[in-house]
This record gives sequence, C-alpha cells and structure tokens, in this order.
Amino acid sequence: MNFTRIDGRAENVLRPTKITPNFMPNAEGSALIEVGNTKVICTASIEDRVPHFLRNQGKGGWLTAEYSMLPRATNTRTQRESGNRGVSGRTQEIQRLIGRSLRAVMDLTALGERTITLDCDVMQADGGTRTASITGAYVALLLACQSLQKNNVIKRSPIVHEVAAVSVGIVEGTALLDLCYVEDSAADVDMNIVCTGSGKFIEIQGTAEKQAFTSEQMIEMLALAEKGIQQLMMFQRYAVK
Amino acid sequence: MNFTRIDGRAENVLRPTKITPNFMPNAEGSALIEVGNTKVICTASIEDRVPHFLRNQGKGGWLTAEYSMLPRATNTRTQRESGNRGVSGRTQEIQRLIGRSLRAVMDLTALGERTITLDCDVMQADGGTRTASITGAYVALLLACQSLQKNNVIKRSPIVHEVAAVSVGIVEGTALLDLCYVEDSAADVDMNIVCTGSGKFIEIQGTAEKQAFTSEQMIEMLALAEKGIQQLMMFQRYAVK
Amino acid sequence: MNFTRIDGRAENVLRPTKITPNFMPNAEGSALIEVGNTKVICTASIEDRVPHFLRNQGKGGWLTAEYSMLPRATNTRTQRESGNRGVSGRTQEIQRLIGRSLRAVMDLTALGERTITLDCDVMQADGGTRTASITGAYVALLLACQSLQKNNVIKRSPIVHEVAAVSVGIVEGTALLDLCYVEDSAADVDMNIVCTGSGKFIEIQGTAEKQAFTSEQMIEMLALAEKGIQQLMMFQRYAVK
Amino acid sequence: MNFTRIDGRAENVLRPTKITPNFMPNAEGSALIEVGNTKVICTASIEDRVPHFLRNQGKGGWLTAEYSMLPRATNTRTQRESGNRGVSGRTQEIQRLIGRSLRAVMDLTALGERTITLDCDVMQADGGTRTASITGAYVALLLACQSLQKNNVIKRSPIVHEVAAVSVGIVEGTALLDLCYVEDSAADVDMNIVCTGSGKFIEIQGTAEKQAFTSEQMIEMLALAEKGIQQLMMFQRYAVK
Amino acid sequence: MNFTRIDGRAENVLRPTKITPNFMPNAEGSALIEVGNTKVICTASIEDRVPHFLRNQGKGGWLTAEYSMLPRATNTRTQRESGNRGVSGRTQEIQRLIGRSLRAVMDLTALGERTITLDCDVMQADGGTRTASITGAYVALLLACQSLQKNNVIKRSPIVHEVAAVSVGIVEGTALLDLCYVEDSAADVDMNIVCTGSGKFIEIQGTAEKQAFTSEQMIEMLALAEKGIQQLMMFQRYAVK
Amino acid sequence: MNFTRIDGRAENVLRPTKITPNFMPNAEGSALIEVGNTKVICTASIEDRVPHFLRNQGKGGWLTAEYSMLPRATNTRTQRESGNRGVSGRTQEIQRLIGRSLRAVMDLTALGERTITLDCDVMQADGGTRTASITGAYVALLLACQSLQKNNVIKRSPIVHEVAAVSVGIVEGTALLDLCYVEDSAADVDMNIVCTGSGKFIEIQGTAEKQAFTSEQMIEMLALAEKGIQQLMMFQRYAVK
Repeated sequence: MNFTRIDGRAENVLRPTKITPNFMPNAEGSALIEVGNTKVICTASIEDRVPHFLRNQGKGGWLTAEYSMLPRATNTRTQRESGNRGVSGRTQEIQRLIGRSLRAVMDLTALGERTITLDCDVMQADGGTRTASITGAYVALLLACQSLQKNNVIKRSPIVHEVAAVSVGIVEGTALLDLCYVEDSAADVDMNIVCTGSGKFIEIQGTAEKQAFTSEQMIEMLALAEKGIQQLMMFQRYAVK
Repeated sequence: MNFTRIDGRAENVLRPTKITPNFMPNAEGSALIEVGNTKVICTASIEDRVPHFLRNQGKGGWLTAEYSMLPRATNTRTQRESGNRGVSGRTQEIQRLIGRSLRAVMDLTALGERTITLDCDVMQADGGTRTASITGAYVALLLACQSLQKNNVIKRSPIVHEVAAVSVGIVEGTALLDLCYVEDSAADVDMNIVCTGSGKFIEIQGTAEKQAFTSEQMIEMLALAEKGIQQLMMFQRYAVK
Repeated sequence: MNFTRIDGRAENVLRPTKITPNFMPNAEGSALIEVGNTKVICTASIEDRVPHFLRNQGKGGWLTAEYSMLPRATNTRTQRESGNRGVSGRTQEIQRLIGRSLRAVMDLTALGERTITLDCDVMQADGGTRTASITGAYVALLLACQSLQKNNVIKRSPIVHEVAAVSVGIVEGTALLDLCYVEDSAADVDMNIVCTGSGKFIEIQGTAEKQAFTSEQMIEMLALAEKGIQQLMMFQRYAVK
Repeated sequence: MNFTRIDGRAENVLRPTKITPNFMPNAEGSALIEVGNTKVICTASIEDRVPHFLRNQGKGGWLTAEYSMLPRATNTRTQRESGNRGVSGRTQEIQRLIGRSLRAVMDLTALGERTITLDCDVMQADGGTRTASITGAYVALLLACQSLQKNNVIKRSPIVHEVAAVSVGIVEGTALLDLCYVEDSAADVDMNIVCTGSGKFIEIQGTAEKQAFTSEQMIEMLALAEKGIQQLMMFQRYAVK
Repeated sequence: MNFTRIDGRAENVLRPTKITPNFMPNAEGSALIEVGNTKVICTASIEDRVPHFLRNQGKGGWLTAEYSMLPRATNTRTQRESGNRGVSGRTQEIQRLIGRSLRAVMDLTALGERTITLDCDVMQADGGTRTASITGAYVALLLACQSLQKNNVIKRSPIVHEVAAVSVGIVEGTALLDLCYVEDSAADVDMNIVCTGSGKFIEIQGTAEKQAFTSEQMIEMLALAEKGIQQLMMFQRYAVK
Repeated sequence: MNFTRIDGRAENVLRPTKITPNFMPNAEGSALIEVGNTKVICTASIEDRVPHFLRNQGKGGWLTAEYSMLPRATNTRTQRESGNRGVSGRTQEIQRLIGRSLRAVMDLTALGERTITLDCDVMQADGGTRTASITGAYVALLLACQSLQKNNVIKRSPIVHEVAAVSVGIVEGTALLDLCYVEDSAADVDMNIVCTGSGKFIEIQGTAEKQAFTSEQMIEMLALAEKGIQQLMMFQRYAVK
C-alpha cells in the first residue's frame, strides 16, 4: 500500500514506547510513560479514607483519576485548569475514562476502606495522552498495590486483570495504530480502545471527526488495537518485573 | 431463548416512541421525544453570532448543545446543575456528545455566521436520555433549518445527513436494544451508538460496566443498533412531514 | 371606559387558567399550571432530612423553593443559570418569595424532620411566572402532603391555609388584573400579591416601574387582586378534588 | 393604648436620626446616616462608562447599588460575602431594591454616558438597614450630582424627585413606625416603604412573617410610613443645605 | 539634607497617629486607627470553635485575619472582593501577614479552643494600610483578651508580646519612615517591618520596586523602622490604658 | 561549632544543585532545576499580546509567573489547585514573588508588546521551592530571550541583570543557608532572599516562625544568602553557556 506515515511507521506499528517505574519517589506507586513524544507522569496515591457513599459499608475501597497537562506540554502554552471547578469538559471526560478503565480491572473489596488516586500529568503531548495515561497508570497502580501487599496492609491484590489502552483511527481511508498529533488532526475517525490482558474490551470510544465509518472499518480498527495493546502489556510487564 | 425483558419486549424491539414536533412555540425548531417513559424536550435556537474563533472568517456557523434534567425527571430529586461551572462531568460528556453528533451531519458553511443551540431538557428519565436527546434534537434542528430556508435566510439546508441514536447493551449475557433504566442498571455492557441515515457510524461509546466484552458481542450489538436506528429515523421523518 | 387590553379582557378578568394535577409522575406531588401562555411545571419533593439549623431540635421540617426557566420559555433564548452560585438576583428573589409564601401557610412542626422542595420550572413565560409558580406550587404541595397522610407518615396536614398569588398593575393609568408580558412591559406599576384563603395578605410587592403611585391606586389594585385570587383558589380546589 | 416599645417611643415616632454629609472625602458624594443604632456609610461614585446595553445609544447613564455589612455590624460576627458570586439572596434583594428606588427618581438621560455606583456599607445594624441605606444614598447621590453641575459636567440635575424609605410593621397587633432589630424579630408583619417627596409610592414590600394581614392594617401602616418619610426628608434637606 | 517630603515631615517622623479604642460596640475588642489620612477599623471577634485541624487536640485556639477596603477608601472606586474565592493575591498576602504577625505574639494554648478573627476594614487608604492594620489589630486583640480575662473565661492573657508595624522605604536615594501613598508610588524600595515590644523582628518584607538596594540601605531602613515602632507602641499603650 | 545539619552540610553550604537547560522542547525557553531533592520544571512562554492595561501604549511588554505542584511532589498527596480561582494564598504569594523578582531585572520596553509567562511546576518538593523556581525561571527566561534575539524579533535583550534566590534561616540559634524541608519545619526564622548579579537585594522576606530575631541575626543571614546566591549564579551561567 502506498500510504506513508509521517514518521515512516507501518500502519500496525506502535511508536517507540518506554515505561520507567518508580519515577516519583514520594508516591506509593509511579511510572513515567513515553510513547513517541508523548510523556505522562503517572502516580498512584493511597489514602485511608473512602468517599461518603462508601463509608462504613464494608464495600471496600475506591479508585479515582485526575488528568492534567503542564502548560508547555503543548506547542503553544495551554492555560491551567484544575480543582473541582473550571476543569474543561475534555479533561473531565478523560479523567472519568481513566478512572472507569482502571476500576474495571479492580476488585475494590480487596482494597479495604482506602482510596487510590491516579494522577496523570502530561509533560509532553503528541497525541494519545489519554491512552498513554491508562497504560502508565496501570503500572503505577500495580506498584502501589504490590507495596500494600508487601507491607501486609492487604492480603490479596485488588487487581484482577491487566489493562492497557491505545488509539486507532482512519486517515485518508487507511486504518492506523497509535496516532501521533499530526495524524490525529487529519483523521476521519478517532477511536480509543481499552482492553484487558485476555483481549476483551473495557471501553470503545470512536468518533467520526470528518467521515462516518462502516462496520468493516470498525472491525479493522479493533484488530489493530488488539495487537497494539498486547505489545503495550509486554512493556508494562517488563517495567514492573 | 428464555431471557425475558422487564416490559416483555423482544431483544431487538424499541420501546414505544413518539416525536411531537413544534412542542415549544417560542423556539425556531422544537420537538418532544418520548421513548417509553423517557421524555425529552428538544429546542433549536438560532442566533446571529458565532464563537470568537469563527468570527469574520467566512467559515460559516456553529452548533452547540446543552443537556439538563428537571429535578424530578428522576425517581428521587436530583439537584440542579447548570451554567458554565458546576456542571457535572456526566452532563458535560453528554452535551459534548450531542453537539458532536449533530455537527457531524451539518455543513456549517451553509449556515452563515449563525449559532444553533440545541437544548435537551429531560422531563422524565428512564434510561437512554442521551440517545433520545440526539434523536429528538435532530428533529428540532431540521425544523429550525427549514424555517431559515423558508424565510430565505439561507439558500440550501446545512443538514447533509440524517442522524439518530440508540443504546444497546448486554444483560445476563444477552444483547438487548434500547435499555430502560432497570435494564441499564443491571447491564454488563452499555453502549451508545449514533448513526447516519446511510447506516454509517458517527459515534460508538461502549463501556464494560461489569464484564469486559468480546468482538463477537460487539458485532452483535452493532447489528441491533443499526436496526433500531432505522426505525427511529422513520419516526423522525414522520414527525417533520 | 375606553382602555382596551391586548387580548380583549376586561380590567378585572384573569387569563384562561388551567391546573393539571400529578403532571410529573415521579414527584410526591406535582401540577402543571397554565395561565394564558404562561406554563409552569411545579413539583413537590419530600426528603427525610432538614437543614443543619433544624436538625435534632424537635422544631419540625422545612420548605424551600427553586425557580428556573427552560432556555426557550422566552421569545429569544435565555442562558441557563442554576446551582448554588451563578443564580441571578431576579431568580433568587423569586425563589425566596415562593418559599416564604408557602411556608406562611404551613405548620412545619406537623411535617416532622422532613424537607419539602418545591421546583417551579417555567416551560413558557408570558408574564406572571412567579405568581403562577406560587399558585401551582400550592397544588403540588397539597398533593404531596395528602400522600404523606394517606401513607400514615404524618398524622395531620401541615397545611393550615390555602394560598394563591396574582399580579396587578397600572397601565396607562388603568388598574389591571393578571398582566401578560406585553402589558407588564408597558406598566407604570407592577405589583405581586399573595393571599390566604381568608383574603388576608401574605406578601405585597409593588414597584413603580415608570410612575410613582398613590394610596388610592394601591387600594384599587388590592381589590382587583383579592377578586382574582378567589378565582384562582377555585381552580386549585378543582384540581385536587 | 398599653403597648410599650422597647425604647419608649410612641408608635408613630422615628428613632433619633442624623445624616452627616461628605463623610468619605474620596467619594464624589457621601453621607453617614445614623438611625438609632443603625449606621450606614453611603457613597456615590461616578465613572465615565455605562454598561454594555447602554453604550453608544444616547440613552444616557446608569445607576447601580451595592450593599454590604462590616463583619461586626452585627452582634455576632457575620461572614463576609461580596463580588459577583457568593452574594446571598438577601444582599442581592437589598441592592436591587436600593438601585431601583434611586433610579426611580432619576432622569438618566440628563446624566450622560456615566454610571453612578451607590455603596451602602453598614457599620452597625439594628434593624432598618435597607431603608436607611436608601435614605442616606439619596444624600450621597444628590451631593455627587451637585458636584457634577458645579463643575459644568452636566447642565441640569438628573434628580427629578426626592426619595426616602422607612420600615413599618405590626407587633402584637399594633402598627409601628421604624422598627429596631428586637421589634423586627417579633413582628407579625414587616413592610418597607419607599416614597417620593410628593408622598407617592415607589416601592412597597410587605411580608407576613407570622400572621397574614388585612387591608385595614395595610392602610394603617402606609399612613405611618408617609409621616415618617416626611420627617426623614427634612433630615435629608438639612444635610445637603 | 535637601530632600523635602510632600507633607514637610523629616525623614524619621511618623504621620499624625491616633487610635480610638472600642470604636465598634458590637465587637469583643475594637479600635479605629488613623495614621495620617489612612483610617482602618479593626475588630476582634471571639468564637467558641477552632478550625478542623485543632479540634479536640488540647493545643488551644487559633487567630486569623481578614482585610478589606471600602470601595471609596481609594481615590477612584475599587471593586469589592471578598469571601473565600475571588479575593485578590494582594489581599490574601495582607491578611496572611496580619494573621502571622499577631499569632507571633500569642500563646494560643492560653486561649482555649477559641478562634479570634481580626477584621481590618480600610475606610480610607493613603499608604501603609497593612502596617496600620497590624498596629490597630493589636489594640483590638488586647481589648478582646482583657474582656475574656475580666469575665473569667481565661485565666492568663494569651498575649505574650506587644506588636506594631510600620513601612519604610527609599525615595530618591533617601530612606524615609512611614510613607504616604504618593511617596510609596515614587519609592525605589518599599519595606514593611513588624516588631515586638523588645525591638525584635517578626516580619521583614522588602521589595525593590525600581532599584535593587544594598545592605547599608537595609540597615538604615531597619533603624528608622525601630524608632517608628517604639512611638507607635506608645500610642497603643495610651489607647488601652 | 557543634550544630550538625541533617545531611551533614556546613552552615554555609548549598545543597547539590543542577540546572538542565532546554528540558521542555516545546517551550521558548526552559530548565529543570534540582536543588537537593527539590526539583522544579521552569518554562518561559512568549505570546504576542499584553494585558489590557498595556495595550497600544508603547510601554513594551509584560512578564507574569505561575507556580504549581504536582500532587505527589509532596510526601502525602496534595490536592490540585489552579486557574484564576481556588488558588491558595500561599500559591498566590509565591507566583507574585516570582513575577516581581524577574520583572525587576527586565527592561520590559525592550520586549515589545509581548507577554512572557514563567511556569514553575514543582515535581518534587523538599524545601526552597520558591527560591529554586526563581533561580530556574531566570535560566528559562534568558534562553527564551536569546531565541527572540537570534530570530531578530527583538534587537537588544530585555534582561538587564542576573537574578537568583535562596532561603536562609535560623535553626536552634544557628544561621543556615539553603534549608531543606526538615530544617525549614524546625526553623525559628525563615527568610527568602532574591539578589541581582551585583549583590544587591531585590526581595527580602523574613518571618519569625517561632522566635523573633535581632538585627545581628538579620545581618548574619544576609551574608550567608549573598554567598549562596553567587554560587547559584555560577550554575546558571554554566547552564546557558
């Protein structure tokens, strides 16, 4: 096929990916994930309290996520936003997605009445920050849970599946794996996919940015994503080994 | 198959659906959509201004959406939220989805420097309020655009495709079309699908609420959704006839 | 007299009025009130909690009101406002007035430690929305209290008087009952009056919009209001019969 | 009659009242008004701009009011509130009332494209702060307008009537003029009345705090108020002489 | 030396200063401080509660400060700001400085579980409002503590040192004591100094507004400040005598 | 002397310090500064606009600073705060200090109508984050200005002095240079000092946390600071060489 990607990759190839565990020494678990020029600092913080709706109910713990970008993660400066108010709709969508994806692989009763907060702070943004955040946050979460077990705070790990995420899309009619920012801007379709270690889907979010898409294209994109996610899980396993 | 739905429907049957056009006489276009016990008032308002980033650029108009629930749309009272701040993440996600879905079928250059605001106010909520909002908002939008053409404000319609939306899901292993609230609460997977009149996808948002899902289940749900959306489009066409 | 009202009514005649009880099936009590083209959905919600200042004090319950307009209740779109912050001064004045007026006819000790929230959501605004809200909210409140009694939650009704409200005003020197929006915009004086079933005043709020007014004009307006309110109470009684 | 007021006044007697003009040297006009133990600093500030809706329309100027209490104006400390948000409903009602009352005696076209802001800051609160604010703000406003005329900025005074305000009420069945805080707390009815120099009404706001009231009681209160306001206007005239 | 100050003072002379104790009768302690044309109302309010982090810990009480300006304290009107949000950075800095300075002379364990709030409301601003606030707040605080002792609420005074504050600066190369607004605007260096009764420093905040400064200039300014603060403490002692 | 610092340093020795230039490739200028375990990412962003008060006035440009901490910069998770509202008093003080310190070494007229925003994001906090931010921000600023000159956007550098900052303090009676967090928590006095390359002071902010301090101690701390700042400037010069 004649389509050439901006960085010369084949359609089904991830960008160079690297996960550095324990990047933030103060956190219970942490990782720096680099996917091409996208870099996200992920930390997992454990606190001995749960939200109001879970208190004293024996239902175990909670997991929540926050997502933010350093002002110069982007090419031109992006204004800060944070706190409970003033967070943009895009940011809220992303932090809800990260939280939901990680909760989906947890047995929260095994956590006890604790809250884990996953902070994903984007140092550099070149497309795919939300999927990189999920993939990196899983490593931070796993390290934090291992430390809870090692310290005999909990008996069994609350993590019951692996999870990683990747973006796929259609650019000029071609399905591509792991879009960088330039590709993402030109994409007809943009899709974020979150999978478990056994290849099942946790989240599929596909949007026709320029062109509606067919079932066939959908199936093609899912296949690309599954392959990419399997590779990302090898990076995760290597990082926490 | 032995699975019985709470209201006796077959897996592939929509709830009773009714669209009342011109429900709000002050609006340029409006509709009341009733899908089972879910009722949403949709209005389209046209204003002769565009957001800052489009002003004096000859790029045409804009379309945005707002979503809200009356406090007693729900079984117990839900607190109000609205304005620029204080809108919950869920609400922001829904209004972004509605706006994106309707913009996807518009040629905004044909609108001139105008903004259309789609207000979707849920009078009664029994599951599927976001998909009912999209389906109803399309009718309000179409009526508003027809009125612009009739008054010679614009020459050709800015609407280039039909659009409707429906939810599908998996409950106790069975793929179901158009979940009501009780089914939605019990669902393993919840998926919202937005399609054009030619059966192509504009948005797919699937979430594993309790169980991750396979490609096969995904394909089964897409098929149910396509069928449901074709029926919804007949209700839309009937309403604006 | 030669003065002609826009809709041909005599000075002392209400607009066509209709109250539909139980309009919102999820609420403990509800009504749709239509006064001419003004339409307000009123719901009464009961919750088993009281504000901080009443908790565990044996002083009984609380009643509060919220008022909002759908964006296209008005001729041109009105921006949403709601929540604790960002509510305009006008809205706050109206919800305080509704709450005060309804509390004035309640014996809150008979309610027990419960809070009733009256939501008045204006579907269509053509003048007199605040007085229609009070008149409709009374019906919603009464239905909610009847249901509490029927279910043996409370022994005696906390409602000790009837209450209804109407606007009066002076337009081109003539005192008029129940002003529609066009009349209201042209009025020299605008007055909202809230009365009990025995014809006593609960609230009088009169404002000279263009011309200060005399005691004689004041007395004339009060007489018009008393007559209108007696009629409104017949509509209320009919609705809850 | 046997009713004795807490400070020995007859029913129809104002508290000792004093208006000190030019109390705040930086302001274009100012006054300190003392009504018994209630003390309010009133300033009038003139700025060469008008709100957006009046700009370049040749409709003249604008007048707005702000009301605030020092934290220890009250017996126990009251938390600060101010700015565009977070101002309580009570404060908003009061500043809207002050603004409306003063605008009612202005010909704003004579002001040119200027905005006058009346700040009413309560140093000490012992009932009647909103009516004292109106009475004092009139003096500040008059002094500011006189200075505009003296400096030949405007040709004729934009003030076309005098205005003052007083509270009346019913305590234990007796109509009283100018209630102090203790009387106000015990009142069945609380009414604020704003009049012009010719004895016409600008605003009447009466609320049944404990008991609904009759037309006869209404008329009795209006008579008391008219008498009190005539006296207050003598204090105003003396202050600006 | 040839340098002449705008009001003819020598370099080392304070502006005329007057402290009126018990200026606000509702407060537990209060003072009006006038330093030239700068006037600040200071009140000390005592409440029987402490912030969350001190509750039931036997660590004693808390002291906090709030600072605000009346809109016409300044030559042109300054917009209000207050509450928890919307307070400007300048205001926050000042209230943190006042609180820190007064806490530095308190033994908070002697206060019991009480909170003292110092409100400093600037009636007129002509430079040095933050230092005048500290000097005046000390008097309000002392009077409040004396009243606690007199009423046998506490046994010994929680105040262990005197405290006062003054500004110094460098204008056209000359070190000056107690700058008024005009001098402050022209200053190369602006420094606020807070001292105890024994001449030790609690706070030094020096800023090069136009020119960086040397150690020698620093020492010269400190000497001026010490002399000024000794005089201010005589005014304080006289006021509470 | 017998006093031993927690990390064995002598009283007058800085922590190991390292400045990595161009750490954030998207920014016009950037640096990572590490002072012991304190790590701050500093970026300088240039935009072709100035605040309202400088627009079209020929007065040149503006410089402003923002300061933030990643949630796990600290030992336990710190909640995010940011945007215009909700930023704590401490953060506001710090960003105002950084902005003022850097503006003090700029000739803003040489910048043209541009705004430079210095973002200081603390990755790890171990005391001295505000002084490290100033020292690092200077490097980011210098690199950004050099790039403006290189691209012939401006003719001469707007930077007219070097600037760096350090903390000093008194712990158990001993004056120390460059306090880490543990020392800072135990300090009687905490002082932040900002100097120019010629050893003059731009800012001195000293606070008696536990004990008031004497002039002699003040002079001793200033001497330590001067020495430390000279060393920091060598690191700065090395980084931009």
